[in-house]
Amino acid sequence: MVKQGLDFSKIISKDAPPPAPPHEGDFKYNFVSGHTDPEAIPIEELAKSAAKVIREKGRKLAMYHSDGGPLGSIDLRKFLSKKLAATRGITASPDEIMITSGSTQGILLINDSFLDPGDTVITELFTYSGSIREARRRKANVIGIPLDDNGLRVDLVEQKLEELKEQGITPKYIYTIPTNQNPTGTNMPMDRRIKLLELSSKYGVPIFEDECYADLVFEGEWFKSIKALDEYNHVLHIGSLSKSLAPGVRLGYLVAPTELLAQFLSSKVDVGTNMITPMIAADFLEEHYQNHSDNVREKLHRKRDTLTSSLREHFGPTVKFFVPRGGQVLWIEFPKGTDTKKPLEAAKKQGIIYNAGADWSVEPEKASNFIRLCYANPSEEAIREGIGKLAQVFHEEISVP
Amino acid sequence: MVKQGLDFSKIISKDAPPPAPPHEGDFKYNFVSGHTDPEAIPIEELAKSAAKVIREKGRKLAMYHSDGGPLGSIDLRKFLSKKLAATRGITASPDEIMITSGSTQGILLINDSFLDPGDTVITELFTYSGSIREARRRKANVIGIPLDDNGLRVDLVEQKLEELKEQGITPKYIYTIPTNQNPTGTNMPMDRRIKLLELSSKYGVPIFEDECYADLVFEGEWFKSIKALDEYNHVLHIGSLSKSLAPGVRLGYLVAPTELLAQFLSSKVDVGTNMITPMIAADFLEEHYQNHSDNVREKLHRKRDTLTSSLREHFGPTVKFFVPRGGQVLWIEFPKGTDTKKPLEAAKKQGIIYNAGADWSVEPEKASNFIRLCYANPSEEAIREGIGKLAQVFHEEISVP
Repeated sequence: MVKQGLDFSKIISKDAPPPAPPHEGDFKYNFVSGHTDPEAIPIEELAKSAAKVIREKGRKLAMYHSDGGPLGSIDLRKFLSKKLAATRGITASPDEIMITSGSTQGILLINDSFLDPGDTVITELFTYSGSIREARRRKANVIGIPLDDNGLRVDLVEQKLEELKEQGITPKYIYTIPTNQNPTGTNMPMDRRIKLLELSSKYGVPIFEDECYADLVFEGEWFKSIKALDEYNHVLHIGSLSKSLAPGVRLGYLVAPTELLAQFLSSKVDVGTNMITPMIAADFLEEHYQNHSDNVREKLHRKRDTLTSSLREHFGPTVKFFVPRGGQVLWIEFPKGTDTKKPLEAAKKQGIIYNAGADWSVEPEKASNFIRLCYANPSEEAIREGIGKLAQVFHEEISVP
Repeated sequence: MVKQGLDFSKIISKDAPPPAPPHEGDFKYNFVSGHTDPEAIPIEELAKSAAKVIREKGRKLAMYHSDGGPLGSIDLRKFLSKKLAATRGITASPDEIMITSGSTQGILLINDSFLDPGDTVITELFTYSGSIREARRRKANVIGIPLDDNGLRVDLVEQKLEELKEQGITPKYIYTIPTNQNPTGTNMPMDRRIKLLELSSKYGVPIFEDECYADLVFEGEWFKSIKALDEYNHVLHIGSLSKSLAPGVRLGYLVAPTELLAQFLSSKVDVGTNMITPMIAADFLEEHYQNHSDNVREKLHRKRDTLTSSLREHFGPTVKFFVPRGGQVLWIEFPKGTDTKKPLEAAKKQGIIYNAGADWSVEPEKASNFIRLCYANPSEEAIREGIGKLAQVFHEEISVP
């Protein structure tokens, strides 16, 4: 009786984004996203923790929210409470911590609760592409403030806040990645953190602090988070286990006063975060956090050195980059006028994938001569080979170097 | 320098829902939501599967989307492809299946892609509260069509579609739970399923088939899904492992043509579903699906009998209910004029929690004399005790029975 299919072009919302492009599969030299080192996954320990927690707590799986209520796994929140105090200077009880599905969900929830179309938010000029995209998806006006080797130019933030105030505009938040900034790899010193908190208070604008990469400082001083300086409620703090443990665990956290968490929970329409993985993570981290983190940092340190020396070898003085003392990305500047998107397809054909800088910038044209390389996933050998091949591709495609 | 906190009342969007109420913790007699039987969680098998898959595939956790791309775990999709063919009559390749974070995410993605404010959707009059809420959150007009003992009154759907057509309105979808309907427990016979598909074609309106409870038929015939009858693209089908395995795994799936999945993926902004749990579930189900499902169904069958006999014993002829032959909920009608919300607080004080009918109805006033009892979670003893106490509470609070 039914003779033909439906025409969905009339059904799909005109506001819906275009369909997702086909998945590209894997690349031999994978420098994109925030993939981590497969060799650093603590396989045996995770397997043991998994079997243990399922045997001990598996019956809890029968009920929604049964392992700590809507805020998520109580064991993981207890661990994070201790860990945030010890490593980030943050005083937060488990009731001030929400487990999220990656730090991404923290970004979604804050935007859901705060943003109306036409609102203004302040971010770093070069920043996480997902954060720019999510604010814009809610039709917010995203203002990017330049960075220097010490991260966000807080003096320029003040200038912008003053300018906006004169226009009667109060931004909804100042989004910053102060520690191992993505993509620039910079670390904001304490004086800027203090100053930013003062600006938050003076102008009535909360700070949205993203510390996704904060566990990965492998050289020099490990500055406390901005949240650590916050005696009131100025800082909303998100973090992730994606970089320190593995992206595949899809676990992050959001630290805020309980009354704000209740607000964010009202937008958390996922009927709870998956329960098994937080149980495993809590059990693993409780025992192995320190050793595991040391191992991850040591591997990243070596890979950073491999990448920077490979770049110097194959690209020479054509490229400039800040040498990060933590995190897993390098932000590389090519001569003005270089279009780093152009060699993308040719690079893929050689098994190399990298992020063009434009996607990591509030103003794409200001980063069209940059590339972002994540050095966590490829082996040191793959980094050396990959950069050699990349130089060849760039030379052939855009005569650089 | 910072002397006081921020006033967030000026920062939170006026469109944001009110803050979530405090979590109530657990109740001795828990008849709400879709909790399952803790005794039916296959602890030992899950523990073994967990250790096994982490040892075999744990390195994949280092990369986003590495276990089957953005559609999610390839092993779980392969299992579901076989299972849907065997038990639901559905022909779907793994590429036509997306793993979601509970079936809830399927509902979110379809609404995200289809609904604009002012759009119309058709649902069963009594239906899953979350589905009503999600459509309304997008400012859709939700039209509820009555049910009888054979589920959705498809004749009334036709009448409504004709009426809407005269007004120039094409609904965005017809949402139905044909198998073990929530909350009525009805099963839609094949002739209505066929007829509904014909209406979908005739009026150009897709069917949004929610088969969350479909694995739980424990008596009588197990009708094939509507999707099984669909030779084209009329049916979007979602399902869940929440009832058949456990809510805590937070795993569901969405079956649709690949080009529609690409559309839905563009709204899936979670950077991938958690990877560990689908690996565990796939490994477990591949080996134990049949035995485990038989066990779950047998337990539910017994609990349904315990609940219906307890209701007859303690509530007598005051209540009417359809005896479902599957699923895990009973939909109980009290005399007209009864307000089943009134005894809620008194019941909680006795350790009993139930769902007032009004929340499970597109038109709340049409179900204010109903309650919904989920019988999967409490033990048979707790069911007997709880219903005895509930009758006492109802008697004291609203003189029923």
